[in-house]
Amino acid sequence: MSRYTKGVSKKKGLKPGSLIHVGNSTGKKTEIHIIDYKDDYFEEKDVHSIDECLKYRDTDNMTWININGLEDIDLYEKVGKYFGVHSLIMEDILNTNQRPKIEEFEKYIFIVLKMIYFREDKLVVEQVSIICMENLIITFQEEGKDGDVFGNLRDRIRNTKSKIRKTGVGYLTYALIDSIVDNYFVILEKVEDKIENFEESLMTTATNNLFNEVYNLKRQMIFLWKAVWPLREIINTLQRGEVEIIGSDISIYFKDVYDHTVQVIDTIELFRDMIAGLLDTYLSSASNKMNEIMKFLTIFSTIFIPLSFLVGVYGMNFDYMPELKFRYGYAVLWVIMISLSAFMLMYFRKKKWL
Amino acid sequence: MSRYTKGVSKKKGLKPGSLIHVGNSTGKKTEIHIIDYKDDYFEEKDVHSIDECLKYRDTDNMTWININGLEDIDLYEKVGKYFGVHSLIMEDILNTNQRPKIEEFEKYIFIVLKMIYFREDKLVVEQVSIICMENLIITFQEEGKDGDVFGNLRDRIRNTKSKIRKTGVGYLTYALIDSIVDNYFVILEKVEDKIENFEESLMTTATNNLFNEVYNLKRQMIFLWKAVWPLREIINTLQRGEVEIIGSDISIYFKDVYDHTVQVIDTIELFRDMIAGLLDTYLSSASNKMNEIMKFLTIFSTIFIPLSFLVGVYGMNFDYMPELKFRYGYAVLWVIMISLSAFMLMYFRKKKWL
Amino acid sequence: MSRYTKGVSKKKGLKPGSLIHVGNSTGKKTEIHIIDYKDDYFEEKDVHSIDECLKYRDTDNMTWININGLEDIDLYEKVGKYFGVHSLIMEDILNTNQRPKIEEFEKYIFIVLKMIYFREDKLVVEQVSIICMENLIITFQEEGKDGDVFGNLRDRIRNTKSKIRKTGVGYLTYALIDSIVDNYFVILEKVEDKIENFEESLMTTATNNLFNEVYNLKRQMIFLWKAVWPLREIINTLQRGEVEIIGSDISIYFKDVYDHTVQVIDTIELFRDMIAGLLDTYLSSASNKMNEIMKFLTIFSTIFIPLSFLVGVYGMNFDYMPELKFRYGYAVLWVIMISLSAFMLMYFRKKKWL
Amino acid sequence: MSRYTKGVSKKKGLKPGSLIHVGNSTGKKTEIHIIDYKDDYFEEKDVHSIDECLKYRDTDNMTWININGLEDIDLYEKVGKYFGVHSLIMEDILNTNQRPKIEEFEKYIFIVLKMIYFREDKLVVEQVSIICMENLIITFQEEGKDGDVFGNLRDRIRNTKSKIRKTGVGYLTYALIDSIVDNYFVILEKVEDKIENFEESLMTTATNNLFNEVYNLKRQMIFLWKAVWPLREIINTLQRGEVEIIGSDISIYFKDVYDHTVQVIDTIELFRDMIAGLLDTYLSSASNKMNEIMKFLTIFSTIFIPLSFLVGVYGMNFDYMPELKFRYGYAVLWVIMISLSAFMLMYFRKKKWL
Amino acid sequence: MSRYTKGVSKKKGLKPGSLIHVGNSTGKKTEIHIIDYKDDYFEEKDVHSIDECLKYRDTDNMTWININGLEDIDLYEKVGKYFGVHSLIMEDILNTNQRPKIEEFEKYIFIVLKMIYFREDKLVVEQVSIICMENLIITFQEEGKDGDVFGNLRDRIRNTKSKIRKTGVGYLTYALIDSIVDNYFVILEKVEDKIENFEESLMTTATNNLFNEVYNLKRQMIFLWKAVWPLREIINTLQRGEVEIIGSDISIYFKDVYDHTVQVIDTIELFRDMIAGLLDTYLSSASNKMNEIMKFLTIFSTIFIPLSFLVGVYGMNFDYMPELKFRYGYAVLWVIMISLSAFMLMYFRKKKWL
Repeated sequence: MSRYTKGVSKKKGLKPGSLIHVGNSTGKKTEIHIIDYKDDYFEEKDVHSIDECLKYRDTDNMTWININGLEDIDLYEKVGKYFGVHSLIMEDILNTNQRPKIEEFEKYIFIVLKMIYFREDKLVVEQVSIICMENLIITFQEEGKDGDVFGNLRDRIRNTKSKIRKTGVGYLTYALIDSIVDNYFVILEKVEDKIENFEESLMTTATNNLFNEVYNLKRQMIFLWKAVWPLREIINTLQRGEVEIIGSDISIYFKDVYDHTVQVIDTIELFRDMIAGLLDTYLSSASNKMNEIMKFLTIFSTIFIPLSFLVGVYGMNFDYMPELKFRYGYAVLWVIMISLSAFMLMYFRKKKWL
Repeated sequence: MSRYTKGVSKKKGLKPGSLIHVGNSTGKKTEIHIIDYKDDYFEEKDVHSIDECLKYRDTDNMTWININGLEDIDLYEKVGKYFGVHSLIMEDILNTNQRPKIEEFEKYIFIVLKMIYFREDKLVVEQVSIICMENLIITFQEEGKDGDVFGNLRDRIRNTKSKIRKTGVGYLTYALIDSIVDNYFVILEKVEDKIENFEESLMTTATNNLFNEVYNLKRQMIFLWKAVWPLREIINTLQRGEVEIIGSDISIYFKDVYDHTVQVIDTIELFRDMIAGLLDTYLSSASNKMNEIMKFLTIFSTIFIPLSFLVGVYGMNFDYMPELKFRYGYAVLWVIMISLSAFMLMYFRKKKWL
Repeated sequence: MSRYTKGVSKKKGLKPGSLIHVGNSTGKKTEIHIIDYKDDYFEEKDVHSIDECLKYRDTDNMTWININGLEDIDLYEKVGKYFGVHSLIMEDILNTNQRPKIEEFEKYIFIVLKMIYFREDKLVVEQVSIICMENLIITFQEEGKDGDVFGNLRDRIRNTKSKIRKTGVGYLTYALIDSIVDNYFVILEKVEDKIENFEESLMTTATNNLFNEVYNLKRQMIFLWKAVWPLREIINTLQRGEVEIIGSDISIYFKDVYDHTVQVIDTIELFRDMIAGLLDTYLSSASNKMNEIMKFLTIFSTIFIPLSFLVGVYGMNFDYMPELKFRYGYAVLWVIMISLSAFMLMYFRKKKWL
Repeated sequence: MSRYTKGVSKKKGLKPGSLIHVGNSTGKKTEIHIIDYKDDYFEEKDVHSIDECLKYRDTDNMTWININGLEDIDLYEKVGKYFGVHSLIMEDILNTNQRPKIEEFEKYIFIVLKMIYFREDKLVVEQVSIICMENLIITFQEEGKDGDVFGNLRDRIRNTKSKIRKTGVGYLTYALIDSIVDNYFVILEKVEDKIENFEESLMTTATNNLFNEVYNLKRQMIFLWKAVWPLREIINTLQRGEVEIIGSDISIYFKDVYDHTVQVIDTIELFRDMIAGLLDTYLSSASNKMNEIMKFLTIFSTIFIPLSFLVGVYGMNFDYMPELKFRYGYAVLWVIMISLSAFMLMYFRKKKWL
Repeated sequence: MSRYTKGVSKKKGLKPGSLIHVGNSTGKKTEIHIIDYKDDYFEEKDVHSIDECLKYRDTDNMTWININGLEDIDLYEKVGKYFGVHSLIMEDILNTNQRPKIEEFEKYIFIVLKMIYFREDKLVVEQVSIICMENLIITFQEEGKDGDVFGNLRDRIRNTKSKIRKTGVGYLTYALIDSIVDNYFVILEKVEDKIENFEESLMTTATNNLFNEVYNLKRQMIFLWKAVWPLREIINTLQRGEVEIIGSDISIYFKDVYDHTVQVIDTIELFRDMIAGLLDTYLSSASNKMNEIMKFLTIFSTIFIPLSFLVGVYGMNFDYMPELKFRYGYAVLWVIMISLSAFMLMYFRKKKWL
């Protein structure tokens, strides 16, 4: 898992509103993707400069500009200037340590969300920022990996008959958030698979390694929780219909995605309980296994203790030890020793120690 | 127990309001059961197509349509169209991962509840959705197993003199919820039986298997909790008398079922405490048993240690060892060894180690 | 302790308001006791039928009817009819699994409380229901054992000069609740005695049995908590002076009993902390004792290990072992062995292992 | 520590407002101390009867009557009568199990506080009740030990130029509360000393005795917490300036003492965390020490096991055992045994077991 | 770490508003630094007496007076007098045990913050008090160590073109708080470094020493939490725009620093979870290591137990023991013993005990 305080101290002492990228560097080039549409019109293209986006700003069409990569500071300064976004907001977009939040301004609203996926078994949290204006939405992603969660949404926009083509900025905002929330369920399914695997593994083996893996999963759940929990409040704000740009006519859709979010949160809570249970089970199982071994070995050695004492007795060199002279002394001793062992085994079994 | 994220990722990327069944497939045919009644009239039948329900929509009689099975997508599309239910609500009905909730609309209210029963010692949670309209209630169940919790309610409707025949949609809604909540008590009784069994078992044996069973019960309690907890809020909403379709004249009945729900919640909390106590007792008991064994064995071997040393001494081959020549040397050694053992036993007993 | 879900499933499927006794059956006959009084008048008698109570309903005198025993369903149906109490309320009176609560109606208020006492070291919780009307109070008890908590209150009513003779239904309600709350302190004193006993016992012995008893006490505290906690809210409602039948002129008395309730709750909380501490102390003490034994025994055997090795050495049969021939070989070995033991003892003492 | 339910059951069955002392009996005589002052006037004396206080009731001077000892019931009945204090309040003053609280009446306000000090290492909680009237304050203490927390305050009143001489009942109330709160810091300092001592002790020794002492400290913190926590609410009430007798012009002083109270609460919370940490450290340290001993001893005996086996081998009496005949057999065996021990020691060291 | 109750009892019995320094004494001389500026004007100097500050009080320029060192009581009495600050506030400035808070007065607002840094691996908490008046800010620091957190801010003021030169007291207040909050991130980065180090260390070694260090870190987090948590409320107050001196036009800046504070709090919570995890891992790892050692040694000795018994058998001196006479008896015994060991090793491996 990546660090939690990704270079935030870099910002110390800078004046507020100074644009600086705070987060993991990817080294990839910033990509800009534009979708411009209305009921009967559709245009889609990749552009190389933010200046090309400018002409879409004041049209009546609905426009969605998606920017991948947070490292081109110049570009972000232009975005702030062209679209009238406050420099503190631009700073927030570039700082990937934001917690999910919504902020309303006169001309736009600003939403920060967390997109989550597994990359080689590690949970990756990517920040998605959304600026919603009248007829224009700009989304900002850290990496914009191929096949991101917005792929299906783009397909729906391309489809002339979809509802999204007939509605405005509110519905598109909903659709973006819904895409991200739907994706959480994919993560949760994978987590549940892991938990089930661990459960089975714990039945058979209880290694220290397993303990660490479960612990890791526990930590990932904290992470997930922190990404999803504030979402409730955000969607609630949008649903109340008091955000002017969004409007209140699509409240039912936000209510729906709100329910999904609550469901995600409930499931994460459940998983945290289950993982805590796994850890308890592990500890109980490890201690049981250890106890069983120690018990076996202790009983084993206990049986030999009186036998060893007996053979010691007849190894003594006293001049006068009558048993040593007996014809069947040796054989009788073996009989005694075997009987003694049998008796002790029975005793231990009766006591339920075996 | 079934999975918590039953195929929810299937929905990823679909447009909102797409009807798709999310949950465990049963393979059974969808069944539709209609009860149509008023004060002096009663009709009951099974129909095979939702179209046959249509004629009951606009009559003055009180109608209860019960639909078992969530897999016939076509049927559900028709239900939405015929009765004017929003497609997002239809989607919720088909998604069995809903948490209990209530949603009010102009023409109907939508309630999701969880029906719970044991099937072969496993807790099964079945989703029940209720659409209440003016003079019409539609209920949706996953399996509608024979002898479901609504059986007694149906009998009461069949009885001409029952109060339910003289009242409207509000009282029937109450009666449905009350049936489900009453059923929770049956579950709680079974759970208490289990807890009592475990308590007795723990007195005699503390096996790892028992630990796992108690743990399982603990998890079932979390499950139960999640099904019942949101019910409080739902019934509270209905009780306040602000839901127009329900009206306020039967508030006292909702208050009653509200109290029952609180009682269920209290009992679940109590059981969770008791189960936590069981686990503590198990751990304490297991560690006690282990300690007792180890103590016994350690004391046993400790008594033999000096004896073995002594017999070792007289097994030595020194040329000059006067004791070996004594006439009663051997006998005296035995006396010494027996006295030593007796002394050690007394010492351990005095120290309360035995 | 009795079961928590005392036959509640008996009610499943019954129509709401069906009177049925839910709780432990006592087999005793239902008893009715009437006290009728005003400033200058006092009458007290036991009656055998609820019909005899009817004449007190509409008089100006203050009347207190106490009914012991919840099993005579007919009687309770008459109570509902004669005094105009809703059938759902009558149902609540007969169901002893109610949590403490208050419900206001136009003509009466309904209060459920829990009376608690020890019977042979077991905590018994008895439900007391109170119906307060203009000039009339009916109380319902499960067993009405001799010398119940209301004995002192009856004596005060019998006294012509007591304040209670000059005041109305509000003050009597207060006096009833106050009697029950005062009784909680008696329980708490007994619990504190137990805790103190356990504390002393833990100093000397830490048996598994003790553990179970402390655990039992812990569970009784949960029970007590559940009985007392909702009382706060009930008394608060009464104290605010908004309940018409009670009036606001005796607010100060309810404030006083409210403070007592808070004190009871505080003390229960404190006891729960102390019991948790007892359990911790038990575990720590048990593990300490075990450790001490194991340490002693391990050190004991450790001292003999090198000695046994040495005597083994001189028990070998090598042809050429010069030490065996020495005149004082045997004596020297004893000196060596004793010195070695002394040295090891000193070493262990220096290391603070002894 | 004294009992928590100091004889409260004595009150059971008494009518409300019956004056009875509930608490630890001290056997000391009740003392009455009067300070009467205004800007240019000062009088101070000890009186022997409450009647002598009566003349101060209606003067314009500011009067502070301090009563030590709660056992003279007659005196308290007179106080109630002379100064018009409700009998329930008088009852509260005599019951030392009150939790800190404030109650407002038309003519006076009633405040209960807890004064805390250490007596021979035990935390003693003494109840201080304050009645504030127009121009008159009566304080009630349980013991009024010499040099109580109000000593400094009295000195300030004696000083003609102090602010307190020029202000009214509000400022004196503030000064009384402030004296008590300031005293809490003295307690906290002592507690911190103890915690620091324990920390050092735990470094060197981890005895069971220490465990009990830390546990005791933990319980004292719960006690302290219960005494201080409600104070916040009391001072907050006074600070809001809505209590008429106190007025709003000295709000800033109450704000200051409020801040101190919050500081005390914060510190207690911190200490509770630290004590919990001490207990964890103790357990970890005790288990570490035990482990270390067991490890040493087990390794020690493990080294001798193969050696003892070897000497056993050459103690056998087979007719044909060639090694026994070798000239240097014995010497070689010693070499082998020493090498083996050295090898095992190295192995254990490499494995970091030593 | 320094004490938590740094000499607070010194204040006991003093009249309120008595100026006395409560905290760690540094022995350094008090330093006064003045920055006076407006849009087109800048002056900066160190002065030696508070009197020199007086002339800046009533000018139109924005003035920032920074005072380092809290031990010169005379100076602080003058500050109170010259700038009209209430003596209780002056007392608060000198008492370094304050929790962060904000207090509003007619002419000024008073803010207490905590500046945090590491000094030789110890967390040092320094109190910073801020008095904001119309056109004047006075800051008070305990030590004012070289290169304090305000260094960058001073540089920005020195820069003619910075926004801070064109804005008033609100923006400077914001800038001061922002500097302190930004500095928390530096601390958090260091803490995260430590946690990562501990994680790696725990993989390889689990010493008791490490345990203490992690515990120490845990305590530092409590400390940090207590310093940061109240900040939320303070900044929230400032952000609402209701504080007149601050105004509402820079709300967006306070919103930004509010978000940072929440981020700090979230991260501290996360770190606390992680440290709790570290401790769990430590305990699990230590117990695992111990178990492994004990298991190895026990198995090792178990293998030798039957072997030692066998050699004991043939060390017996019975007259008639046929095996002793056999030509290959000795060799056969060796074969038997080696086979037995091999068999036991295999058995233990099969049981997964090795």
